[in-house]
Amino acid sequence: MENKVVTMENIHKRNEQLAAELNADLTKKGVFTVNVMGAPGAGKTSVLVSLIKQLNEACFVIEGDIESDIDSMKLKELGISNIQINTGGACHLDTPLIKNAVDEIDVKDCILFIENIGNLVCPAEFLIGEHIKMLICTVTEGSDKPYKYPLAFEKADVIIINKIDLTAYVSFDEAYFMKGVRALNPEVPVFSVSATTGKGFGELSQWMQSAKEKSLNKLS
Amino acid sequence: MENKVVTMENIHKRNEQLAAELNADLTKKGVFTVNVMGAPGAGKTSVLVSLIKQLNEACFVIEGDIESDIDSMKLKELGISNIQINTGGACHLDTPLIKNAVDEIDVKDCILFIENIGNLVCPAEFLIGEHIKMLICTVTEGSDKPYKYPLAFEKADVIIINKIDLTAYVSFDEAYFMKGVRALNPEVPVFSVSATTGKGFGELSQWMQSAKEKSLNKLS
Repeated sequence: MENKVVTMENIHKRNEQLAAELNADLTKKGVFTVNVMGAPGAGKTSVLVSLIKQLNEACFVIEGDIESDIDSMKLKELGISNIQINTGGACHLDTPLIKNAVDEIDVKDCILFIENIGNLVCPAEFLIGEHIKMLICTVTEGSDKPYKYPLAFEKADVIIINKIDLTAYVSFDEAYFMKGVRALNPEVPVFSVSATTGKGFGELSQWMQSAKEKSLNKLS
Repeated sequence: MENKVVTMENIHKRNEQLAAELNADLTKKGVFTVNVMGAPGAGKTSVLVSLIKQLNEACFVIEGDIESDIDSMKLKELGISNIQINTGGACHLDTPLIKNAVDEIDVKDCILFIENIGNLVCPAEFLIGEHIKMLICTVTEGSDKPYKYPLAFEKADVIIINKIDLTAYVSFDEAYFMKGVRALNPEVPVFSVSATTGKGFGELSQWMQSAKEKSLNKLS
């Protein structure tokens, strides 16, 4: 048996090549792809539900979880097309996993949201064929997250502050949060929303539609 | 140059050996060691502050973060002895990092809390010399966390539900949460607390003191 040495550097490099190929393929098919990242309990699925309701676009969700199909079932009940991926322990999604899912669902002309594993660290390190990364934070997590998990904030193309219906009950220092965000990512758009009340999704969905147009036109 | 093949299995095995050695060394010194795990924003540092105030024991904290010394400075201001470790990107602590810190601080006869990286996935896979693992969840994260991040719940020796001051404002289904916890970990003690109001820390600190005695007596 051949003894093959796989280093982390090789894994990253191979993943980036595959991600670029998958992204080109998705672009050709008119599939604007969003890598949705956030900590456990940030409300990634709930934000997607509220956003998809507002969007005037065909949407599809790839649900990434370590185990369970809770989020996938939730989306199915709401009539949102989706497919579940389980990583079986792994802390992030990677391109081979997404490529398999994309081959199976055969999407075109839509927005494809890929909900990554709930984790503010590892998912930011791996491309998965996306056009943009959407990072979901919450007022309940506290305002120091950009300082503690800088890579996710640096790489984000859009940042959502969720759970703003709870602002009155927690000590979220938005100015301190935004100072951290701006130090890492001066131009990133930031939207405040509540997936519970529906507030803020009009602006976010407009931005998303325009990001889709810009991204696909630029790349086609 | 020698070509050394390092597999994940080797890394895990070596880490477990080192962890057992470090644990034996800490036990000899009367240092009860707690691996503190939780998602970003679960309130790990705030829970430690409230718990240490209640404990009738010398306490020391090793603060693990990817970057920043925000939590370390917060503890210092409150007069809590601590040392900061930065992983420089890595998503969990491991035993070599902790052994270096322990060598530096030279603790004895105390409770040593090691605050792991905010992450519900990777920290659960790596021993760091601890006697017990304390998992901190919150009512704001939602009640499906045991189902989605089973390893952390399965391995926990004590589970804290934090932010119960916010229970009235969120839809946390405690029965569903506990059903998931019990399926993975039938006997684990669970404490509900609020680091904001101080509620629940009397019971938790009593449990912690008794866990220290049991653990050090059993092992010595």
